[in-house]
Amino acid sequence: MTSTSTPFARNQWYVAAYAHEIGRELLGRTILGEPVVLYRTEDDHTPVALADRCVHRRFPLSESRLDGDRIVCGYHGFTYDTTGTCVSVPGQKRVPRTARVASYPLVEQDALIWIWIGDPALADPQTIPRARHLADPAWTTVTGMEPIDGDYGLLVDNLMDLSHETYLHGGCIGTPEVAETPITTEVDEDAGIVRVSRHMDDAACPPFYARSTGIDGRITRWQDIEYFAPCLYLLHSRIAPVGVLPEADGTDPNAFHTEITYAITPSSEGKVYDFWAVSRDFATDDAEVTAFLRDFNHEVVMQDVNALNLLQRTLDTEPDGYQELSINIDTGALAARRILARLAEEGAKPVEAVR
Amino acid sequence: MTSTSTPFARNQWYVAAYAHEIGRELLGRTILGEPVVLYRTEDDHTPVALADRCVHRRFPLSESRLDGDRIVCGYHGFTYDTTGTCVSVPGQKRVPRTARVASYPLVEQDALIWIWIGDPALADPQTIPRARHLADPAWTTVTGMEPIDGDYGLLVDNLMDLSHETYLHGGCIGTPEVAETPITTEVDEDAGIVRVSRHMDDAACPPFYARSTGIDGRITRWQDIEYFAPCLYLLHSRIAPVGVLPEADGTDPNAFHTEITYAITPSSEGKVYDFWAVSRDFATDDAEVTAFLRDFNHEVVMQDVNALNLLQRTLDTEPDGYQELSINIDTGALAARRILARLAEEGAKPVEAVR
Amino acid sequence: MTSTSTPFARNQWYVAAYAHEIGRELLGRTILGEPVVLYRTEDDHTPVALADRCVHRRFPLSESRLDGDRIVCGYHGFTYDTTGTCVSVPGQKRVPRTARVASYPLVEQDALIWIWIGDPALADPQTIPRARHLADPAWTTVTGMEPIDGDYGLLVDNLMDLSHETYLHGGCIGTPEVAETPITTEVDEDAGIVRVSRHMDDAACPPFYARSTGIDGRITRWQDIEYFAPCLYLLHSRIAPVGVLPEADGTDPNAFHTEITYAITPSSEGKVYDFWAVSRDFATDDAEVTAFLRDFNHEVVMQDVNALNLLQRTLDTEPDGYQELSINIDTGALAARRILARLAEEGAKPVEAVR
Repeated sequence: MTSTSTPFARNQWYVAAYAHEIGRELLGRTILGEPVVLYRTEDDHTPVALADRCVHRRFPLSESRLDGDRIVCGYHGFTYDTTGTCVSVPGQKRVPRTARVASYPLVEQDALIWIWIGDPALADPQTIPRARHLADPAWTTVTGMEPIDGDYGLLVDNLMDLSHETYLHGGCIGTPEVAETPITTEVDEDAGIVRVSRHMDDAACPPFYARSTGIDGRITRWQDIEYFAPCLYLLHSRIAPVGVLPEADGTDPNAFHTEITYAITPSSEGKVYDFWAVSRDFATDDAEVTAFLRDFNHEVVMQDVNALNLLQRTLDTEPDGYQELSINIDTGALAARRILARLAEEGAKPVEAVR
Repeated sequence: MTSTSTPFARNQWYVAAYAHEIGRELLGRTILGEPVVLYRTEDDHTPVALADRCVHRRFPLSESRLDGDRIVCGYHGFTYDTTGTCVSVPGQKRVPRTARVASYPLVEQDALIWIWIGDPALADPQTIPRARHLADPAWTTVTGMEPIDGDYGLLVDNLMDLSHETYLHGGCIGTPEVAETPITTEVDEDAGIVRVSRHMDDAACPPFYARSTGIDGRITRWQDIEYFAPCLYLLHSRIAPVGVLPEADGTDPNAFHTEITYAITPSSEGKVYDFWAVSRDFATDDAEVTAFLRDFNHEVVMQDVNALNLLQRTLDTEPDGYQELSINIDTGALAARRILARLAEEGAKPVEAVR
Repeated sequence: MTSTSTPFARNQWYVAAYAHEIGRELLGRTILGEPVVLYRTEDDHTPVALADRCVHRRFPLSESRLDGDRIVCGYHGFTYDTTGTCVSVPGQKRVPRTARVASYPLVEQDALIWIWIGDPALADPQTIPRARHLADPAWTTVTGMEPIDGDYGLLVDNLMDLSHETYLHGGCIGTPEVAETPITTEVDEDAGIVRVSRHMDDAACPPFYARSTGIDGRITRWQDIEYFAPCLYLLHSRIAPVGVLPEADGTDPNAFHTEITYAITPSSEGKVYDFWAVSRDFATDDAEVTAFLRDFNHEVVMQDVNALNLLQRTLDTEPDGYQELSINIDTGALAARRILARLAEEGAKPVEAVR
């Protein structure tokens, strides 16, 4: 492990895929360093996740084919059912009793497929954080996923400190006010939640919002981040003409709300899946706005992807023990790192114990 | 060495090239980790193999040019004769006495160039296994060579267990019967020979044979493998309409015979040269069949090459000490591994002794 | 460090760029393993070199933008003045006192930008070797720079021993006489200067000089190398019709003089910047000759680049402790290696002491 690697927290839920990505084609992903093959059963479309390595000679099962609900290895035909049990081998009737691959607990919720890589006995679906807007018909959502050749901690850093919008995404979603406006940070260490808020009372409206909302003057812009370590990140974004505030009863009919969702799923060391979604409660039927937000947010995400790929390559050439200098804007990211370190440590314990 | 590397057996003969590949162009190959440059002399076309590194500054001689039978280094002109002796250097008349590169014993036989990388005192041409059909006018042969980015042991595994034809080469040379039919395995540990046979009495005829023999019904299909460790692999293939057997006198006029030859030559660690040839005793003058078998077998070989490249990349990311599960079909491959381990150990001894 | 790496001599001047390469675009280079960003100030065009890593999260400043004379980091907007002092950070007024990046001494001289990576207290501009012809209006110069994926010692070797012209550059600048004619070598160990001379009284005229000078018969060709370790290499080339010698008073009106300059600047380990220039005192206004020499010398340099890239890849696969065999032509290169080893050792001492 290099000095830039954030350890993996194993006993946690992670997003393996969007629900719509899993079907009757085998999909291979590597999650927390574990190769996984994903598919759905033929009749009831139940998602299945098995270890992506044939017990025979380690051929990737994701390079194989489905026969009904069974995976037939593409090399020698070892055949596995949905539990990972090998049910057929070539050239003989008897299947060795130890012939099975791991199967992973999955939960399909909020248009996401959540996976549990750690100790299955600890997998409690109740602890999965919610992102209800992703499956709520009152919201229209665009999504995407980009793999990044960078430590997942770099993506957490990136998302926890939005002052970078002004510089990396200037002209897209950043304006001077984002970097200038101080943040407030709240940390719930026990629950593993970090909240970072930045309320701009009078800010320029960046193209991302001007084009999607139709506002053409200055705006009140609120950014309220909730990070449910290790995987789910929600940015509650509220945009309104300057001076327009929520009503006394808590409703907010004159503002535009956008839920920006990220799922940060560590792949192998130094690689991370960057799942992103943009959900809105306005112009929900406007296909043009949908297309604009999909393309424009993809462009923004690629600015981050390129910057983090570059940053990882840069860090890979730095001498060990290089220095960082943190300031107030980093409070949320530092809290997140602290929580991730604790979760990784806790996740490591049961695994050690059973060895 | 990673956990997936099969050790090299040095004191053994290996195929360096097809005879037709060596000529008046310098050819560089790496065999058992040793860089070698190959060419033929001008007058009598004797093949020559020298170490592919100039004594001066290690420039590859294969990137140089021939002057008659001498190699003139492309960097500073150090010049070597066919024995590897340096006979000329720039700027001075005197050539240092120690200026020489290794020369390797070669044998040209059966349209192959065999090389001996180990202790030259042990190089006995009588121990080279034969593949007479390759140079026999009664057979028509097509050939090719593909480098694989994989441990040579993976190619040995692949070839010793043909049940993979059904899955990896389904629709080409594989049919369900190959995987279903049990094998018999004979091992001559002392001679280093493994024989694996699979006799299918009533099998579908795959396109490879249907198109080349003209048979359109079901067939009797015999696969008789002889592996002469470490390098030469012969698959004696017999195809005939169902029920047609050899005569009582041993002749077999109503069957179609194909000799499928592989030479498995380890290059550097994790890389192997896959020499392949298909020889037939039928339709020997039919250019269309020749072209078909060349193209079709190349396609089959590339299925193996792609699978083994993938498998090696996969194994490279596996944790050390990963598990395999072997069954009856692996008997031949496991015997081959055992023999290779012994040959490597024996080959290592003399080299250790002279150090 | 592999067995093929020449250690870096830190307390020395190196060419970071041609003067014309530095302007108002940020230029990133890695010199002696240190990432550096270069630019000029807006008003007086002073060249500036800062460490190319933001103190905040190590983002490369060369991927940022200039705001006047200040660099604004492209990730979060940390802003640095020309001394490397951070003068602004996002979200707060107070800038941490320790927020600064290293700034490197630069000297602009002879159309070159010289940089000092080692202990700044030892940086004495008087010790920079001169290449006055590069900025002398009596000479016309063409230049270029090629990065090589090879140890910088390989480039020093290459340039100190021009016998390679006959083989690697035959048909361009090499003729048989270059390899055949013995050299004389003078070494000033204390000053770190190596001089290698080869005077050919009667030689073929290679295309490089035939086309640029118009000479079409045999020539007197003098090659006088001066290498000022570690970075500056001058080849004083004198071409004249056979028998034409300098006058008794030292003037040399009937010869053609070419100054071939190289600056050898180690980048990261195993990488080197190859700055090259060809200056002539004849046909100085002839644009066709200028274009010819630029294109032709670029071609020659690329022959070296390709050969050294290949040589480095070759050496990377050699076992440790591989042998070389040196002869008379290597006297200069061996002296250079000795001097470089001493300079590296001396350069290492002060750095160790201050730690």
